[in-house]
Amino acid sequence: MGLSFLILMVTIATAVASPIHLLMPHSGSTGLKHSDLNCMSWRLAVETDNLKGWTQIPTSCIEYVGHYMLGKQYREDCDYVFSEAYEYAKGLNLTGDGKDVWVFDIDETTLSNVPYYASDDVAFGYIPYNATKFDEWTAKGVAPAVPGSLKLYKQLIELGFKIVFLTGTREAFKEPRIRNMINIGYTQWEKFILKGDNYHGTAVEYKSGKRKELEEAGYRIRGNMGDQWSDLIGTNVGDRTFKVPDPMYYIG
Amino acid sequence: MGLSFLILMVTIATAVASPIHLLMPHSGSTGLKHSDLNCMSWRLAVETDNLKGWTQIPTSCIEYVGHYMLGKQYREDCDYVFSEAYEYAKGLNLTGDGKDVWVFDIDETTLSNVPYYASDDVAFGYIPYNATKFDEWTAKGVAPAVPGSLKLYKQLIELGFKIVFLTGTREAFKEPRIRNMINIGYTQWEKFILKGDNYHGTAVEYKSGKRKELEEAGYRIRGNMGDQWSDLIGTNVGDRTFKVPDPMYYIG
Repeated sequence: MGLSFLILMVTIATAVASPIHLLMPHSGSTGLKHSDLNCMSWRLAVETDNLKGWTQIPTSCIEYVGHYMLGKQYREDCDYVFSEAYEYAKGLNLTGDGKDVWVFDIDETTLSNVPYYASDDVAFGYIPYNATKFDEWTAKGVAPAVPGSLKLYKQLIELGFKIVFLTGTREAFKEPRIRNMINIGYTQWEKFILKGDNYHGTAVEYKSGKRKELEEAGYRIRGNMGDQWSDLIGTNVGDRTFKVPDPMYYIG
Repeated sequence: MGLSFLILMVTIATAVASPIHLLMPHSGSTGLKHSDLNCMSWRLAVETDNLKGWTQIPTSCIEYVGHYMLGKQYREDCDYVFSEAYEYAKGLNLTGDGKDVWVFDIDETTLSNVPYYASDDVAFGYIPYNATKFDEWTAKGVAPAVPGSLKLYKQLIELGFKIVFLTGTREAFKEPRIRNMINIGYTQWEKFILKGDNYHGTAVEYKSGKRKELEEAGYRIRGNMGDQWSDLIGTNVGDRTFKVPDPMYYIG
């Protein structure tokens, strides 16, 4: 995680008027309507893929999600996923033929869009996805790394894995994406797969198809990480999958 | 959830010397060694199937898991899963031919073993699984319902679903299991499938095989609920799966 991201988070946290009650359900104390929804239960349901097809976070969980994403728990949850992935990876025997690959999704897996999602007109996913605005953000190429992801990336390369980035970002954004990745330290890869500008299948179909192509080309997918279950289900999912936390949006 | 379970939980909670700090990581205040492990991160990793093959909960998370299981968060997490399952179920069109089924696992999905897991010599899963002791508990047939499960069960029957119980419990325990289920309100089912006493495959193989038999017999698995990912992955998983919380043990 870059220092700039830390500074940004502190800046954003300071700008929030109400105090941070980490992981506490919304109390109603800020004047927003209190809801019976337990935001911890909602987040668990999101992370376990019990909820599907949702387009925005619940009104009563805006503060909860914001505090989670800007607080230490999200960072520690991410760190733990990446460190457990390393524990698994270092126990594997690699053949040395350059065909053992680790597949990383990009958004909320290696690049963090939290600075974008923290803005008032996104509200951590309360405002439904706006493609134009998100494209503008992506084109800037200034996303920081997801906490812990860059460390694992470097560890995997050290262990001898080849890295495959597989993203739903469209080819049109190849230049800013690659610039962004290199700028923050993701400097090498075996494949960098973006989605065709005119592709119209689902995320599961797209990612399964690309992983199938990898396996048909002789690669062995030893690990596969993503923040969306659509990164991790379907076909050719790899020997082991790791779900990175993301309570801000759903991609089916 | 039965009144007896509530009373039991209050009794157990009262017997615990230290106060309940719901969902707070272990503070080290009780004299146990403080660990760097964030128990919330550990539980999230368990629930998202990032951790596999673990045989006991971490030492530093015994209190955390105990407080979680006996506190309100576990009950609310369960209630939310079952209520979201109902939201999904009531939107389905049933054909009325009696072939739309809902598959329930039993342990920690419809029957709760929390009274057993809360005992000193189990310590919420810190002491590795002891088949003899657990069998003794199962044979008693006194497990309460998992919070929210019985309500969904009744709602599904009302909607016209047929119920299939599919459990890893062995045939040898059929009598106490069925007695237990009936006693707490699970009084009817289309199939009650227990594991052959001499079956030696994995949980995923066993459950996939039984679900395949169901589909080959013309049943449509519209929903499938379990506390273990081995209930929900493999083949013939059904139209939709729901992961019920369980940070106490892992079945692969």
